[in-house]
Amino acid sequence: MTGFSVETPEAAGDAMHGLMRRLFPICRSLTGEGVRETFRILRELGPLETHEVPSGTQVLDWIVPDEWNIRDAYVADEAGNRVIDFRKNNLHVVGYSEPVDATLSLDELRPHLHSLPDQPDAIPYLTSYYARRWGFCLRHPDLEALKPGSYRAVIDSTLEPGSLTYADWVIPGESDAEVLLATNVCHPSMANNELSGPVTLLALGLWLQSLPERRYTYRLAFLPETIGAVAYLDRHLDHLKAKVVAGYQVICTGGPDDFTYLLSRDGNTLADRAALNVLAHDGRPYRVLDHTRRASDERQWCSPGAGLPVGSLMRSKYHDYAEYHTSLDDLDFVRPEHLAAVFDVYCKVLRTLEMNRTWKSTLRAGEPQLGRRGLYPSMGGRNHLDADVEALSAVLGYADGQMDMIAIADAHGRSAVSLAPAVEKLYATGLIREEK
Amino acid sequence: MTGFSVETPEAAGDAMHGLMRRLFPICRSLTGEGVRETFRILRELGPLETHEVPSGTQVLDWIVPDEWNIRDAYVADEAGNRVIDFRKNNLHVVGYSEPVDATLSLDELRPHLHSLPDQPDAIPYLTSYYARRWGFCLRHPDLEALKPGSYRAVIDSTLEPGSLTYADWVIPGESDAEVLLATNVCHPSMANNELSGPVTLLALGLWLQSLPERRYTYRLAFLPETIGAVAYLDRHLDHLKAKVVAGYQVICTGGPDDFTYLLSRDGNTLADRAALNVLAHDGRPYRVLDHTRRASDERQWCSPGAGLPVGSLMRSKYHDYAEYHTSLDDLDFVRPEHLAAVFDVYCKVLRTLEMNRTWKSTLRAGEPQLGRRGLYPSMGGRNHLDADVEALSAVLGYADGQMDMIAIADAHGRSAVSLAPAVEKLYATGLIREEK
Amino acid sequence: MTGFSVETPEAAGDAMHGLMRRLFPICRSLTGEGVRETFRILRELGPLETHEVPSGTQVLDWIVPDEWNIRDAYVADEAGNRVIDFRKNNLHVVGYSEPVDATLSLDELRPHLHSLPDQPDAIPYLTSYYARRWGFCLRHPDLEALKPGSYRAVIDSTLEPGSLTYADWVIPGESDAEVLLATNVCHPSMANNELSGPVTLLALGLWLQSLPERRYTYRLAFLPETIGAVAYLDRHLDHLKAKVVAGYQVICTGGPDDFTYLLSRDGNTLADRAALNVLAHDGRPYRVLDHTRRASDERQWCSPGAGLPVGSLMRSKYHDYAEYHTSLDDLDFVRPEHLAAVFDVYCKVLRTLEMNRTWKSTLRAGEPQLGRRGLYPSMGGRNHLDADVEALSAVLGYADGQMDMIAIADAHGRSAVSLAPAVEKLYATGLIREEK
Repeated sequence: MTGFSVETPEAAGDAMHGLMRRLFPICRSLTGEGVRETFRILRELGPLETHEVPSGTQVLDWIVPDEWNIRDAYVADEAGNRVIDFRKNNLHVVGYSEPVDATLSLDELRPHLHSLPDQPDAIPYLTSYYARRWGFCLRHPDLEALKPGSYRAVIDSTLEPGSLTYADWVIPGESDAEVLLATNVCHPSMANNELSGPVTLLALGLWLQSLPERRYTYRLAFLPETIGAVAYLDRHLDHLKAKVVAGYQVICTGGPDDFTYLLSRDGNTLADRAALNVLAHDGRPYRVLDHTRRASDERQWCSPGAGLPVGSLMRSKYHDYAEYHTSLDDLDFVRPEHLAAVFDVYCKVLRTLEMNRTWKSTLRAGEPQLGRRGLYPSMGGRNHLDADVEALSAVLGYADGQMDMIAIADAHGRSAVSLAPAVEKLYATGLIREEK
Repeated sequence: MTGFSVETPEAAGDAMHGLMRRLFPICRSLTGEGVRETFRILRELGPLETHEVPSGTQVLDWIVPDEWNIRDAYVADEAGNRVIDFRKNNLHVVGYSEPVDATLSLDELRPHLHSLPDQPDAIPYLTSYYARRWGFCLRHPDLEALKPGSYRAVIDSTLEPGSLTYADWVIPGESDAEVLLATNVCHPSMANNELSGPVTLLALGLWLQSLPERRYTYRLAFLPETIGAVAYLDRHLDHLKAKVVAGYQVICTGGPDDFTYLLSRDGNTLADRAALNVLAHDGRPYRVLDHTRRASDERQWCSPGAGLPVGSLMRSKYHDYAEYHTSLDDLDFVRPEHLAAVFDVYCKVLRTLEMNRTWKSTLRAGEPQLGRRGLYPSMGGRNHLDADVEALSAVLGYADGQMDMIAIADAHGRSAVSLAPAVEKLYATGLIREEK
Repeated sequence: MTGFSVETPEAAGDAMHGLMRRLFPICRSLTGEGVRETFRILRELGPLETHEVPSGTQVLDWIVPDEWNIRDAYVADEAGNRVIDFRKNNLHVVGYSEPVDATLSLDELRPHLHSLPDQPDAIPYLTSYYARRWGFCLRHPDLEALKPGSYRAVIDSTLEPGSLTYADWVIPGESDAEVLLATNVCHPSMANNELSGPVTLLALGLWLQSLPERRYTYRLAFLPETIGAVAYLDRHLDHLKAKVVAGYQVICTGGPDDFTYLLSRDGNTLADRAALNVLAHDGRPYRVLDHTRRASDERQWCSPGAGLPVGSLMRSKYHDYAEYHTSLDDLDFVRPEHLAAVFDVYCKVLRTLEMNRTWKSTLRAGEPQLGRRGLYPSMGGRNHLDADVEALSAVLGYADGQMDMIAIADAHGRSAVSLAPAVEKLYATGLIREEK
């Protein structure tokens, strides 16, 4: 695959949507070949490293489940017609369904069928990862149309010891302090939650890789939800606690809704401060939710024993849109321009982290004579200072070796990145030095 | 007296009001037989221990005054008719009036008569504890109706060395850390301020005693206002400073007005946090006043040298209702349902204190696998988590060994007690341990 | 000069305005005889000490510029008529203009002429301290009226090594802890910004000197803007950092607008707390601006290396009024009653600093028996406490040795100075002692 450009947000949005179209049909789940096939495609674009955790492995409080694979599944009527067909939509089968091949009456079959009476156009998405059962999901009118009679229910699946598959990609920077960016790869054919996350994270990885220099090391983790994050914590807990300075759960990035930023547990971590500084000055509508509204892998990253500073910037947030966890969460619901906007904001957030150093004036006291250095107008009059001088003054007046650039920018009601040119000039003239 | 039930707030409200009807006619004051008679009746219901402090005793900066007792008092006209009669209402005599038996002209008598021109139906309540004088209080029209002539003013009182009487009741718990609950017993025939306090405190004592177990020790103090609290501090200061973790001044609990919570001096003590968490989710209208609005024994409990964490939950607050300190503050003003509501809220506050432990996850990191323990639904779909799982998640996600349950509940915008079932399940399954 | 009275704000306002009328015509600049003449007049009234810093001296990051003096300047037409005349208004010459005597065409002259098309009645005020140029300022219609032809431009100035002149006045108090009060003396004929500052600071100095006792030492600094403050910091930095507990930049005090308080960088220094406590209860409309809106010598006082706790209380703030830095900022714009009001508020702020001690109750615990000391009414009834007793109670209830009087006053929603009588009574009766 070629032409995955991240040169502009628009190009990235198109590339992400294109990649989604390719990945969409694959039947992913917690484990199995669908996840591996997804990683094979992602690895065409970026150097993800995949890892396998055998079934039965204890990871923190959890046990890695058997691996689930499925080849076919259907319910056929007496005439042999497939009235429910996995080949048409992989949501038709309850995730992790055990194998079955049985002929049942409609009454016997009925408890295994799931629909949404209030959303007749939608096939629901259901899973039963940790309890053995089998079932089919279908549109409610299709369920109602089933006539009494005999049906053959077939699920050609295997649920056997195998392994859990996840991937990560570490992009080194000057420092071994890390920014953690995580997403989920366990959902079958749904677009916002969750195919938007992996493609956005891939795009961010390519963008980070393209930067001429990076201050931080970036750790991108592509994980099955919950068990994948738990396994990742199990393997890397001490490292992550020692190194991660900020992190984001990159999911639900493709829908049409306003931005949502979900705070980390502390609510005032570097991750939160960077995201909120960007959102406050980016001009796009957004809301902020506190950490009690979490329901993705922040549950693991921010758990008491881990306590990582991880927030999440989303568009259409899980639970909060009608198409959530149904077949209506499709490639029409997710649009390239939505993905482009999230990519743009995430890039600004990462740029903010990169430039968020703490500076200290090199002078004994007082302001420097900027005019002598060509940084101040030589004629004094009645006008306000221009924006460049304002930015210089903001940095010089607050660079006390304690406030970082986000704090200085917040105090001035402006974005931290807007102060970057002033910082560069002042650093170049030796008027500030980094305080570590 | 039998039938004082605290099984439900309604029953407690009826019992409290019944007890008030019995206690109302007694002429209480700072000292004297009225207070002792009141304690004799309360001791029929609960094991209060009474204490006597001799007149002349120095207690902190104060001197215990002489004991005051009164048998009769009246003003009679020339025909011998009692135009003001203590036997009809003990508010007719200025509290602590010195004895007198004198015949005076109306002009001579006039400076000794007190009325409220703006509230003609009300006999005012006046006292002169620490300066010798005598006087009568009456309704303003009755004062205006007095014709010139000769009057005999008789106050058959004694003001002699005796003692100050107070009572306390210590209900032990697992810990010797204490919750202080204090009230006033020095007011004659007025209902909200202040007979509601002692009956509410008695009901709370009976309820606390009925609990199968108590975490804290509860110290209930029934005190004449100011001098009683000062004497109590004098005798118990070091103990109280060492042991009291929270306290409430239980007064003004019977009137019809919305709840008032008066903050402790610090404004964020355990007492305040527990009361505010309950009030925020109890559904009853309330207001919060800062400590500068105090005018009861919080003045002593929270004084600089004591610094106890004591707030006060009231209904019709002293100073803030028209009937305050008059004969109109009577048994019609105070209703059983008002008392029942305060009792209910105070019980919730005390339950909050009891359950407000600090828990810590026993896991190394990550969420526990609740499904394996039957605490999580085995089928995953599109619905929000149910309330039980939400509560489990709230506790598990925040049980970091630092936030107590009130803090966790406040973060989730819910009452702490609503999290108690989740705490019990998690403790029972060994997923949390108490952090002391 | 006699009759400069500071006995009342009104008298002070009149005296300040009178002094302004005398000082207004002098052509001040960063350096030169205008500043020295100004100090000669001020020294008739107060014992200011003047200091000279030679041109070329390095002060912190700056170099003291050459001294500028001007005797005459004009533009004359071919007939010799002065069409622009420095003698009529010293704003007609760009400050620090180098000498010139040249005959030019209108086209050649035009780049040296400055006007304000949007404010045709105003001569703008321009300077070019640190870059050599010359120029004239004039009303826009006068510029437009110039006909093509030959003009003679004469500026009889000198720009030669000399010195920078500033003055200070230290008024000693019991403590060597200092309050810094600074102003600017570098502006030619403009009234609010800036002749109001020096006359207000002089009045404050005379008022401070008249006090029977002072707790703090007061350091009044009369400085050319920026370079003067930088020079002052250069000479006194260690002393100021060690001694200054609060400070104010006293400028822009004479205009008609509502009060503006500009916060120090920290935003919660003693200077800020005192000023805000006074303003909140003084009844005059005001606004509070954060430190990012600074544009006077707070830039130096609060710079990272200095970090002094300096705010600024102004009326018509630089940049924020139409007459700013033009000839319209004159003696009609500044009125005695405006100056009187600022003087009044500054005096209250300084009184607040003087009385803002931290007291601690001398009792073991509890309230003192005020009645015994004649400080509490002997008859208790239904009324609220009177204001005197409220003030005593406020101090006694919060005098814990940690909260200073501003903190106690803020907690009670009142001015600190309103608590001064209560403090005096309690100190006189030995009920409080100062906690240092």
